[in-house]
Amino acid sequence: MSEAPSASPAAEEPSFRVPAGEIAGRLARLQEAMQAAGLEAVFLVQTVDRFYFSGTAQDAFLFVPAEGPPLLFVRRFAPRAREESPLAEILPIESVRRIPVLLKERLGRLPARLGLELDVLPVNDFRFWRGLLEPRECPDASPLLLRLRGRKSAWEIARLEETAEMSARTFAHMREILAPGLTEMEFASRAEAYARGLGHAGLLRVRGFNALGYPGHVLSGPNGGRPGMLDAPASGSGTSCAFPAGAGPRRLRPREPILVDFGSVKNGYHLDEARMFAIGGLPPEEHSACRAAILIHDRLIAAARPGVTAGALFEEALRLAGEMGLAEAFLGPPGHKVRFVGHGIGLELVEPPFLARGHKTPLEEGMVFALEPKLVFEGRFAAGVESVFVVTAAGGRLISRVPVDVFLC
Amino acid sequence: MSEAPSASPAAEEPSFRVPAGEIAGRLARLQEAMQAAGLEAVFLVQTVDRFYFSGTAQDAFLFVPAEGPPLLFVRRFAPRAREESPLAEILPIESVRRIPVLLKERLGRLPARLGLELDVLPVNDFRFWRGLLEPRECPDASPLLLRLRGRKSAWEIARLEETAEMSARTFAHMREILAPGLTEMEFASRAEAYARGLGHAGLLRVRGFNALGYPGHVLSGPNGGRPGMLDAPASGSGTSCAFPAGAGPRRLRPREPILVDFGSVKNGYHLDEARMFAIGGLPPEEHSACRAAILIHDRLIAAARPGVTAGALFEEALRLAGEMGLAEAFLGPPGHKVRFVGHGIGLELVEPPFLARGHKTPLEEGMVFALEPKLVFEGRFAAGVESVFVVTAAGGRLISRVPVDVFLC
Repeated sequence: MSEAPSASPAAEEPSFRVPAGEIAGRLARLQEAMQAAGLEAVFLVQTVDRFYFSGTAQDAFLFVPAEGPPLLFVRRFAPRAREESPLAEILPIESVRRIPVLLKERLGRLPARLGLELDVLPVNDFRFWRGLLEPRECPDASPLLLRLRGRKSAWEIARLEETAEMSARTFAHMREILAPGLTEMEFASRAEAYARGLGHAGLLRVRGFNALGYPGHVLSGPNGGRPGMLDAPASGSGTSCAFPAGAGPRRLRPREPILVDFGSVKNGYHLDEARMFAIGGLPPEEHSACRAAILIHDRLIAAARPGVTAGALFEEALRLAGEMGLAEAFLGPPGHKVRFVGHGIGLELVEPPFLARGHKTPLEEGMVFALEPKLVFEGRFAAGVESVFVVTAAGGRLISRVPVDVFLC
Repeated sequence: MSEAPSASPAAEEPSFRVPAGEIAGRLARLQEAMQAAGLEAVFLVQTVDRFYFSGTAQDAFLFVPAEGPPLLFVRRFAPRAREESPLAEILPIESVRRIPVLLKERLGRLPARLGLELDVLPVNDFRFWRGLLEPRECPDASPLLLRLRGRKSAWEIARLEETAEMSARTFAHMREILAPGLTEMEFASRAEAYARGLGHAGLLRVRGFNALGYPGHVLSGPNGGRPGMLDAPASGSGTSCAFPAGAGPRRLRPREPILVDFGSVKNGYHLDEARMFAIGGLPPEEHSACRAAILIHDRLIAAARPGVTAGALFEEALRLAGEMGLAEAFLGPPGHKVRFVGHGIGLELVEPPFLARGHKTPLEEGMVFALEPKLVFEGRFAAGVESVFVVTAAGGRLISRVPVDVFLC
């Protein structure tokens, strides 16, 4: 079976499909893991998990037994689900109350031990499904699902590289449009509009129910030195106290560090990248902080070999920052530091594993990370860099195609 | 106490604040409702609910007892929470494990009957908080919170009118930039970028864990006739099967109906509006469908008086569509119709009450709705209109300022 091509720029109809072989491999690994965990079935409600195992994001519910074919119950809209998904069993339903009826018809009975996505499923939804499907036990299936999603296939790496290509063009465009007097919001939104023209879906997928998925996080000068609501080294001003994070109304000025952290998504696959920009050069301290972040970035990627633990990479980042006398600013100002220097990324902007203190997960080939060493000088500025890389036998290999540099425009 | 002004266009720092009197009134109504419901306290985790009752969206947890001052526990970032919120008791915490300790210190004991947001709180979070705060009972507080949020104050109506002003300028800009050959994505993203320059926060808030909050839903010609994953009369093509809704790569053509459904948010307050556009006129059937949607829109707004039920307005919409011979296309093609003709709106894009079949909620003064009569001709096109109005003693009054018309550009 050949790989589904991406839509050409001239196509007026989205033609991207997840190949049948990808879905079959994912389901085989899921069923193997379910059997090892003693799960009789999983019932997937969250869009991204469903998309990963079915190839469609239509309004549907995916039932995967530990053995035998999965069943996709489609509420809206079965003809599109059939075009998009290679699954054999796609069953339109007018009401979710049909699901237990159809399951009993097919399987003879309802499963006793049914995995659900307990990290995202709201309590009321959980109670509804438990009442309808009557399992004896409902263990949390999410850790298992996310572990499988963490290791990307060659096909997925190729998709991430397509997103990286779109993102590299977007960062190149940013260098052309950066100008003093633009507000952070104007700069961010022009970059976003450009990316949308190249196929950016406009909305980043985040798993946490309070998390925010906006693309352009632009923090200029002192806005880079502001902690806030985000679990990030700096939050910026945002547009109002109702949305107090990211780009705000401050105007860009010459000779100040501008942190541009930009999230991209194409065909469902995300990149998360940051570069420093400046108009007309930077003072020495600011410039040297930018270079220091790049040094940590480069060293960590080289060290990201299979078997190294996520926690060991984190400690190495701290050691390097300390060696350069930058421990105080590293990962946030004192008292407000984040506890990770990178995170997994793929169909969601932030996925496990985290490159974080004490995390014992060993890196594996095919794991993909967004690595983001950042320095925050409170009230003054931020300096940092973020790229996406894949773990290979020879160490990390950059998926990001944006030049690893400080952009002095 | 005077009203907090919005940031002037020249301000480089967001200055919007929720006035102390607003917060005090909301909390008084909440505590009255809690006493009536026998709730000892509520513990608010979701950002929007917390923002409504505290004035800040920092990373925090809001504890409101049935009597006495609320406590805001702030994880990140207390100095900003203190600037933004008029609450007296703002307590920074380094770990959430401090919360029960501080509650016992202040109240003598932990509450036995603690309301939580069970419609959004994921199972794992719920179990964590239940283990930490040890209530005997955890009823769902969300219906009560959402009922209070449903009736807007004069101050909130004024904020919605500011968003409406921004949105009217955005729709005027769309009329200038509409051109054949642009893709739906390009057109949507240019409109979004323009709105961002005026203070649009870029991201719409939606409550459902699988719901999507993207601003520009542009469906041209046959893309308006495509059902899909959305609980909407039409879903469009989207950018790929990973994101199969909204604007896609199709190019805009002359003499076809273009449905532009655009969500706006400023200072936390949303508008949701739709207008029909066409380049160089429309054929008679298409044009007449657009006018029919406007007729239903105008009649329903006039009929939206206090005491009329949400269900009665819905039935009136069906009756009008039937009278014009348009029942088959109304609210979606046969077999794929949505069950509502409008929804509440405010700090979230979609809020209860719904203008839906059988809903007995009587309209009250100050309730704000997005009304969206739409006609979908499967495989051919959509025609519709959407505006936001507030219920007054004299009937609905438009908050939307976009001319109620078909834009032939």
